[in-house]
Amino acid sequence: MKEGKIKPKTLPGFMELLPNEQILFNKMKETIQKSYEKYGFLPLNTPIVESAEILLAKAGGETEKQIYRFQKGDNDLALRFDLTVPLAKYVTQYYDKLGFPFKRYQIGKVYRGEKAQRGRYREFYQCDIDIIGDGKLSIINDAEMPSVIYNTFKELGFDEFTICINNRKILNGFFTYLELNEKSDEILRIIDKIEKIGPGRVKNELLEIIEESKAEEIMRFLGIEGSNDEKIKALESLNIINELFEEGLRELKEVVKFIRIFEVPEKNFKVDLTIARGLDYYTGTVYETFLDKYKNLGSVCSGGRYDNLAEYYTDRKMPGVGISIGLTRLFFLLTDNNILSSEGQSISDVLVISMTDDYDICAEIATKLREANLKVQLNIEKQKLGKKFKYADKINVKYVITIGEDEINNNVVTLKNMITGEQQSLKLEEAINKMTKEEIK
Amino acid sequence: MKEGKIKPKTLPGFMELLPNEQILFNKMKETIQKSYEKYGFLPLNTPIVESAEILLAKAGGETEKQIYRFQKGDNDLALRFDLTVPLAKYVTQYYDKLGFPFKRYQIGKVYRGEKAQRGRYREFYQCDIDIIGDGKLSIINDAEMPSVIYNTFKELGFDEFTICINNRKILNGFFTYLELNEKSDEILRIIDKIEKIGPGRVKNELLEIIEESKAEEIMRFLGIEGSNDEKIKALESLNIINELFEEGLRELKEVVKFIRIFEVPEKNFKVDLTIARGLDYYTGTVYETFLDKYKNLGSVCSGGRYDNLAEYYTDRKMPGVGISIGLTRLFFLLTDNNILSSEGQSISDVLVISMTDDYDICAEIATKLREANLKVQLNIEKQKLGKKFKYADKINVKYVITIGEDEINNNVVTLKNMITGEQQSLKLEEAINKMTKEEIK
Repeated sequence: MKEGKIKPKTLPGFMELLPNEQILFNKMKETIQKSYEKYGFLPLNTPIVESAEILLAKAGGETEKQIYRFQKGDNDLALRFDLTVPLAKYVTQYYDKLGFPFKRYQIGKVYRGEKAQRGRYREFYQCDIDIIGDGKLSIINDAEMPSVIYNTFKELGFDEFTICINNRKILNGFFTYLELNEKSDEILRIIDKIEKIGPGRVKNELLEIIEESKAEEIMRFLGIEGSNDEKIKALESLNIINELFEEGLRELKEVVKFIRIFEVPEKNFKVDLTIARGLDYYTGTVYETFLDKYKNLGSVCSGGRYDNLAEYYTDRKMPGVGISIGLTRLFFLLTDNNILSSEGQSISDVLVISMTDDYDICAEIATKLREANLKVQLNIEKQKLGKKFKYADKINVKYVITIGEDEINNNVVTLKNMITGEQQSLKLEEAINKMTKEEIK
Repeated sequence: MKEGKIKPKTLPGFMELLPNEQILFNKMKETIQKSYEKYGFLPLNTPIVESAEILLAKAGGETEKQIYRFQKGDNDLALRFDLTVPLAKYVTQYYDKLGFPFKRYQIGKVYRGEKAQRGRYREFYQCDIDIIGDGKLSIINDAEMPSVIYNTFKELGFDEFTICINNRKILNGFFTYLELNEKSDEILRIIDKIEKIGPGRVKNELLEIIEESKAEEIMRFLGIEGSNDEKIKALESLNIINELFEEGLRELKEVVKFIRIFEVPEKNFKVDLTIARGLDYYTGTVYETFLDKYKNLGSVCSGGRYDNLAEYYTDRKMPGVGISIGLTRLFFLLTDNNILSSEGQSISDVLVISMTDDYDICAEIATKLREANLKVQLNIEKQKLGKKFKYADKINVKYVITIGEDEINNNVVTLKNMITGEQQSLKLEEAINKMTKEEIK
């Protein structure tokens, strides 16, 4: 590099993929989108830049620190740090034009200036769905979420994953029953760590803030084991007289019932009383999703029910339920742990290579192939044949058609399957048939 | 609105669509993407935020004024203002891992703090393709661009559009031949306005800077009329002895020849000697595309050939050719002028409505419909039937299935076609068949 040139580099924490990785990433993104659309969620695409006042309406300390905020002219602007705040703005702003319950998905980049570290991103995709009610929202929507999660991860190619379900009302009602409601936030924060630090340490931490008999009741509660029905039965037999607890249990039963009607297999969902999900946002059903063999990767899809989406913008009460897939991080985890591989990903079905200077025929053939709905690259550069095949390898193309003098004279093409190495001399129509058939397989 | 609430609003110059508009927008975006992929372009998705040093490497006055630039910690950051600079960075940074010619598409948002006015956006989508050579790049690639433009606009549903093609070498060679090369930038700037101000005023402006005989030669040159072949013939018969002019003419002939081989119909492309496209970036073939009936909307797809993509980052010479569709502005123009309508756009195929409190059956039916690959919304809210049908109208759904007591007792569904108003009582399988068949049509 000579002097005066600027060294090309990408900012740390900003994912930038090679083409084959990008193809895989896009496939996952499109799969998620299609799955969301199958459930009737409408697309939104709100701006990435919003007025800082709007985005920070409800933000607390961490968000304020992490947000990308800047001036342009007289405007105090910021990059969105999630898709929920823009949704709250959107439903308030366009309330009169929307049908409720309003079901929307949004797949887009969000920005958080977190400390840079491997696998943590400052620009990352969130893939969100939410159902927003006008005043009220049926509990059955809470059961539709696991159905969407199930369908989405199946479509993504996964089989062994578990959607963990809990209800915050059960936890909060239980703490109130134990007369611990003032400490419930603290307790939830401790419980939330059970997967990481284990029940022993959770109990020790609990003992620092509550008396032993109550800590033991909580541990017994958290230790409830068995099938989904057995857990629900155990919760019922606790005979806890508390309205919130009872409401939460009723909701949980209803959610489990409808999850089954939506045909989510029993092995893919689980009542999990240890799931608490953050602290103040969620008010009812909560979800986390784990890949069974890679539970250590953390939840790959989370969400829950909230009472009041847009309280900072309107007095109108808008309860909702939603989930989010952090696609950028998920993609990183899956490829970094060799669960998914981007090797061999290709956009093109076939590469047409000229072996002579007669480019006309190559261009004609490329046109015919595209008319047959194949994805076609044309290489008519003056390069050595070896270089052209190296190029074919780089773009992972499955078929190469070469056109040399013999092919032109005999009105055929040479079709090479780059995976099997098989090479045939064929009429163009035969080659098209062969590729089209194999693509369909 | 009570005190203490923040008024929800979107920044001026930032497009935010209603769901039916967003559906149409997304369809256009996907059509463009599919068309680009059909030609073997690889997907890229570079960050929206980059180091300001990288983005401003070659920027001039306007860009510096318009760019969104800000500090975060010690970092001097900016939002990308186009997709070309990130591409230049990308090909330099990942040179060893890419195959050349490198063909990529990128569809993404870019940011320019322009003066806010109707139809001008500060956040807008660009849909770019470029082919980047390593050292050299065959002229046939310049012919592939119009083929992609043609295919893309056909797929977008247009029939009457014209891809205008010129070659900057012809213009610059011609000016050199007239010994006006020192004034060629100025002359180009005047010529560029011919569509807006007409030939008379162009000539007057030319007369202010060059002598009459030369202005007349230029006007004669610009006035060359006829078919594509006639224009090329007229250019040849000018007998201009200038190397650059001759090279440009040779290239133009080659491009026209291959455009025909790529089967772009004669009515959809045109040699247009008045197209100049900006001033310093493009060096050879240039393109602009007009909708025949709406030429006043300006070019809807432009681009050209350049000699040196990444000179600010590397000494390596990388010529390229590319085009760009400004999708946000195009969408605005098409809908604002009623050329396209977002009315009736829908995500869901069918809405399932419960008329009783028996939601189980509704959830079962929704599940069966989704298994049949239909896009299904379920409305199980406690709402009056009228409100539910109003909702159906709002989401523009084509079919509504209602489930009441009669339906449950007789094991049927009531299927209503919301467009024709036709309503039938059918077995679920019959309803699925009916919808699936009509969807395929």
